[in-house]
Amino acid sequence: MSKPLLRLALAQFVVATAGRNMTKVAYVTVAAGVLAMVLLTIDPASDMAYHWLVGVLWACLAFFTFEWLVRIRHAMLSGRGLPYLVSGRGLLDAACVLAVPAGLVVGASQRTAWLLAVLWLIKVIPGVPGLRQLRRVLVLETGPLFSVLVIFLMVLFLGSVAVYFFERDVQPATFGNVPAALWWAVVTLTTTGYGDVVPITLLGRMVAAVVMISGLGVFGLWTGILATGFAAETRRDNFLKTWESVSNVPFFATLGPSAIADVTHMLRTIDLPARAMIIRKGQVGDCMYFIASGEVEVDLPGKKVRLGEGAFFGEMALLGNNLRSANITTTKLSKLLVLDLVDFRLLMARHPDLGQTIDAEARRRELENK
Amino acid sequence: MSKPLLRLALAQFVVATAGRNMTKVAYVTVAAGVLAMVLLTIDPASDMAYHWLVGVLWACLAFFTFEWLVRIRHAMLSGRGLPYLVSGRGLLDAACVLAVPAGLVVGASQRTAWLLAVLWLIKVIPGVPGLRQLRRVLVLETGPLFSVLVIFLMVLFLGSVAVYFFERDVQPATFGNVPAALWWAVVTLTTTGYGDVVPITLLGRMVAAVVMISGLGVFGLWTGILATGFAAETRRDNFLKTWESVSNVPFFATLGPSAIADVTHMLRTIDLPARAMIIRKGQVGDCMYFIASGEVEVDLPGKKVRLGEGAFFGEMALLGNNLRSANITTTKLSKLLVLDLVDFRLLMARHPDLGQTIDAEARRRELENK
Amino acid sequence: MSKPLLRLALAQFVVATAGRNMTKVAYVTVAAGVLAMVLLTIDPASDMAYHWLVGVLWACLAFFTFEWLVRIRHAMLSGRGLPYLVSGRGLLDAACVLAVPAGLVVGASQRTAWLLAVLWLIKVIPGVPGLRQLRRVLVLETGPLFSVLVIFLMVLFLGSVAVYFFERDVQPATFGNVPAALWWAVVTLTTTGYGDVVPITLLGRMVAAVVMISGLGVFGLWTGILATGFAAETRRDNFLKTWESVSNVPFFATLGPSAIADVTHMLRTIDLPARAMIIRKGQVGDCMYFIASGEVEVDLPGKKVRLGEGAFFGEMALLGNNLRSANITTTKLSKLLVLDLVDFRLLMARHPDLGQTIDAEARRRELENK
Amino acid sequence: MSKPLLRLALAQFVVATAGRNMTKVAYVTVAAGVLAMVLLTIDPASDMAYHWLVGVLWACLAFFTFEWLVRIRHAMLSGRGLPYLVSGRGLLDAACVLAVPAGLVVGASQRTAWLLAVLWLIKVIPGVPGLRQLRRVLVLETGPLFSVLVIFLMVLFLGSVAVYFFERDVQPATFGNVPAALWWAVVTLTTTGYGDVVPITLLGRMVAAVVMISGLGVFGLWTGILATGFAAETRRDNFLKTWESVSNVPFFATLGPSAIADVTHMLRTIDLPARAMIIRKGQVGDCMYFIASGEVEVDLPGKKVRLGEGAFFGEMALLGNNLRSANITTTKLSKLLVLDLVDFRLLMARHPDLGQTIDAEARRRELENK
Repeated sequence: MSKPLLRLALAQFVVATAGRNMTKVAYVTVAAGVLAMVLLTIDPASDMAYHWLVGVLWACLAFFTFEWLVRIRHAMLSGRGLPYLVSGRGLLDAACVLAVPAGLVVGASQRTAWLLAVLWLIKVIPGVPGLRQLRRVLVLETGPLFSVLVIFLMVLFLGSVAVYFFERDVQPATFGNVPAALWWAVVTLTTTGYGDVVPITLLGRMVAAVVMISGLGVFGLWTGILATGFAAETRRDNFLKTWESVSNVPFFATLGPSAIADVTHMLRTIDLPARAMIIRKGQVGDCMYFIASGEVEVDLPGKKVRLGEGAFFGEMALLGNNLRSANITTTKLSKLLVLDLVDFRLLMARHPDLGQTIDAEARRRELENK
Repeated sequence: MSKPLLRLALAQFVVATAGRNMTKVAYVTVAAGVLAMVLLTIDPASDMAYHWLVGVLWACLAFFTFEWLVRIRHAMLSGRGLPYLVSGRGLLDAACVLAVPAGLVVGASQRTAWLLAVLWLIKVIPGVPGLRQLRRVLVLETGPLFSVLVIFLMVLFLGSVAVYFFERDVQPATFGNVPAALWWAVVTLTTTGYGDVVPITLLGRMVAAVVMISGLGVFGLWTGILATGFAAETRRDNFLKTWESVSNVPFFATLGPSAIADVTHMLRTIDLPARAMIIRKGQVGDCMYFIASGEVEVDLPGKKVRLGEGAFFGEMALLGNNLRSANITTTKLSKLLVLDLVDFRLLMARHPDLGQTIDAEARRRELENK
Repeated sequence: MSKPLLRLALAQFVVATAGRNMTKVAYVTVAAGVLAMVLLTIDPASDMAYHWLVGVLWACLAFFTFEWLVRIRHAMLSGRGLPYLVSGRGLLDAACVLAVPAGLVVGASQRTAWLLAVLWLIKVIPGVPGLRQLRRVLVLETGPLFSVLVIFLMVLFLGSVAVYFFERDVQPATFGNVPAALWWAVVTLTTTGYGDVVPITLLGRMVAAVVMISGLGVFGLWTGILATGFAAETRRDNFLKTWESVSNVPFFATLGPSAIADVTHMLRTIDLPARAMIIRKGQVGDCMYFIASGEVEVDLPGKKVRLGEGAFFGEMALLGNNLRSANITTTKLSKLLVLDLVDFRLLMARHPDLGQTIDAEARRRELENK
Repeated sequence: MSKPLLRLALAQFVVATAGRNMTKVAYVTVAAGVLAMVLLTIDPASDMAYHWLVGVLWACLAFFTFEWLVRIRHAMLSGRGLPYLVSGRGLLDAACVLAVPAGLVVGASQRTAWLLAVLWLIKVIPGVPGLRQLRRVLVLETGPLFSVLVIFLMVLFLGSVAVYFFERDVQPATFGNVPAALWWAVVTLTTTGYGDVVPITLLGRMVAAVVMISGLGVFGLWTGILATGFAAETRRDNFLKTWESVSNVPFFATLGPSAIADVTHMLRTIDLPARAMIIRKGQVGDCMYFIASGEVEVDLPGKKVRLGEGAFFGEMALLGNNLRSANITTTKLSKLLVLDLVDFRLLMARHPDLGQTIDAEARRRELENK
């Protein structure tokens, strides 16, 4: 391949892998690699199977190496070679590529070295959409979560010392020192309860009961904190996503800024690919839609009508009879704003002028369709 | 039986089974069938018992076959034979009928084939009222729940590879390969903790402690997400159910649309069968009722008064003394709107005219009863 | 004892036991009885100990019999003998008294019959203050909770039939029939995980993993529903308790009904016995108090000032410096309304006239104290 | 050392330890001491290791003794010697110092006495920031939590008596008396499930299933209550912290008191040390900042601008393009108020005058930077 062609191929690869950060190919490679790694640890039925598995693993490694090199080159071309190499992403890419060879170099056996292929899983992380939201919750609630962790450690140490004191003479094999008692305490406090180490004295069991109930308490606090943080974060996230789109819909332009904030809280954004069916004729309708971007096609008897950016549809099922009267599908990638029946009612009540606009449009359409 | 009569019987059966989707007969059949299937796997005390159980199972199967045929016929009469057959419901009905015979045909033993009768349980699903609400929550929260699942899988794989590495030499029987370690990890991460596979090295136990605590964390996130979604969904569901009814009550007709939305948030809908006692004389009253549809009978000393659609009652205990002054029962299937004491106060405060109407009516009734 | 005196004693006993439904004596009796019952099942060190325990149990039974007879007599005197006997409370009282003798009569051994003394515990229920609130939550959320139960049972049956199918040949002793597999399923689905019955085949373990993860899901739904219901109920309960008291405080009388509803949401009610210290000098103050009923004493240097119903105190720490300037204690049973610093600020902002009143009073007091 | 110098050293030590209540030295000492205590219980490899560990423990004890004496002296100098000694803090300090020597005096072995060093952990508690908040939640929700505890105990006793009744004849070794059954019940109800005591009769297992499901229910209620309480407390805590700061920002001075309460709900306070980077050039901006106290430095191309108390920054990324246009770092300890993009929009909508001020300032800065 000539150099410009190669460069073009590289550029395309980078675009493909940068956009959603991981092409589907990369996902499949990760899955195949980890599966091969898992199977490699089982005594293989034949040498053949073993060689095949190792072959798959080397192929995956080759793919990740190629991907890494492409990214380095791309970063260097835009003058950010070093920043990429020392960024979290760059270090991760490097680790995925270098871990297994490094293991082999320092003398680990084939099987042991390939265990490090489990690191490839981490490449999936940036592609998970909701993870950023989870991280925000964890960051915002750091304080209370840290407090709960301190309580957890406190109960852990106090409980294990107490149980060690009561059980050490009766069960020297399992409660012979505090580290062993700590193992018991962590198994108990998380309510896992393997049963490999169990107190048998009366006082030891009383301490154990307190530790178990504390376990429920700690867990309850933990959950309570996360639930609270998550509720706030969800509300915020939805508002942000919707706000951008609302301003694209001329229908809402007549509203003052305060009413727009109000409306934004009511709407929900959904992204749809082309040719997705939004409304199916004959179904019960419980929401209407505004088109923030893209286009939809209404499949009326005898003709097809296209609605573009800023238009709305689905309001007829909310106003008159409950059943959808036509199939509606997207024609290209579209972003829609969904207004639930509940909020439709509230909107009509709080902003009667919007209600009239929708009403008039619905009546006009009904006439037209007759 | 002549053909028209048979058709009539079929039609009635369809109406009976279509309305609430499962007659009580079908529920009982499912329960009897599954119970018989469970008992069939126990070594029977006698051949007699065995034959009886198989008999019950064949009877249940016959019932479901009959139900399925009736539904097919009904669908074909209304020209929707094929759509029904390939719909989720139709396929489910077919599976329930055909699974056991298919099992017998492919050569499974009686006992094994009848195990498939457990599929009959799925017929209960559409009859569960709150399930639609649960599904909506799961759909709306798909993003975050999927993220949590990814974290779950990540911890699972990383934890099991780490524990395999530390334990494989010490416990080759239980931690001899990564799939075995994965079994340990899933048992630990869900805090089930059977205790059949337990790490015993110091480093293995440290990894186990991290996996257990991650288990609590994952679980907490999971619960937090579901709690958040459920709170939003409950509010929405209640609003929708109530909105329909509020418009049937003339009492609220004087309110503007914004106030109606306000009132709707305060009310709760309940459906009551005929002859249900709503208010018992002498009890402490903490709510009042509006009749959206149906009729109630007030059991005053010496006479019985009937109140119909749009009327309200129970307000006297909220205004004057706290005790209910008469028994009130429904005379037919009724839908009532409940206004809690809290919201009654708020309503009186925000809409003084409504308060005066209620007050005047209460005073009129008190005079009348003297 | 002459008959009128006896009647008087009975009447007093009834008053004492009816008010808070259980005197402290009854609580102690229940605790002593249950403790004696528990100890009776241990092989006693001596005959003496055994006879003492039985003696305690008979004494407790005598007490409950006496209590029951008093209540019957009291109910009969007020013409409600039969209603009491067949009411939930009456039947419970009867069961507590008659269960053990009935056990002895039908031929159970002493030890077995006294096990029924565990029923006495149920007498504690009506005295638990928050239980009514919990019951309301459970009633309101019946629908969703029932749905979750159905899902739970579904997973239980499907999981246990699948595991039975995969494990029956390998482990006939533990997975020999579906009831045994159901036991495994319930232990797994609740994430209890005793470890007495564990799948060992690959497919069985895969089903088990699904059941465990479903267990987390079911549990998360359960918790989410209860959390949602509880949040709503807490808000409602607090409003109801506070509303009654707010109307007793003349300070709020100038507010319109809408503002009163607003204020009610900000206040929290607390009940304090006599001689309870509310404010300690030198502490950081973060709330002020209104006296709904009762009286407090302010311990100023050189004199003691008493404040009665409708007065307020503690506002100085919110307005000027943060430290409390005097000890304040109740002189009798008092009901106070607490206004948090947060809500104090909001109240001052929304109702400036109230703010001025508080300000003026605070300044007057400061002058007086100098 | 001369006496004045010693006094000065003491005074400095007190100041250092009083401010954040525990210097980092004390934290390290606690960690070292507890670690040494844990290791001491393991059979040491050599006498040497043993003596080193005991040496570390005595050193830690010496440090805590010194700290205690300094605090006593300091308290006596300010005339509060006795109050400190009998306060919670004083008693805790005394216990940490005296527990181990007391153990040795009453004749416990070295190893046993040093177990009491686990009490040192409690010294960490007052330094945990979120613990006060957790305690408030627990106090406010005492009622419902107590109810859940009663339900828990009820199920515990009823379940264990029932299982004892069904299992005592089959498994006399493990279910021979009710205390043993109580141990089983607590292990089951908390879903710990060691598996050391497991029912094997059909009826016993049915009771066990009910106990397990009740365990989930109890746990769900517990979590629901804590989540509810925590949500309310978080909101309150944030409001309090922010309110103080808002009044320091002249920008908000033009708002009426009602609007200030409104704004306070939107803002979040963060404390930053000197030289912390707040905004990094090129990042996506989703919030703006107000300086409540401290100072920041804006790193513009060619010059550095300092912004002091009351200034705001970061608004340009919210108004125009999304990317931050300069690095901004703190120059000293600063308290900032964060306004999220969501709330920025709401604020602009509800208080248009503020919006104009921000807008004008942003435009002025943009001009200046060109």
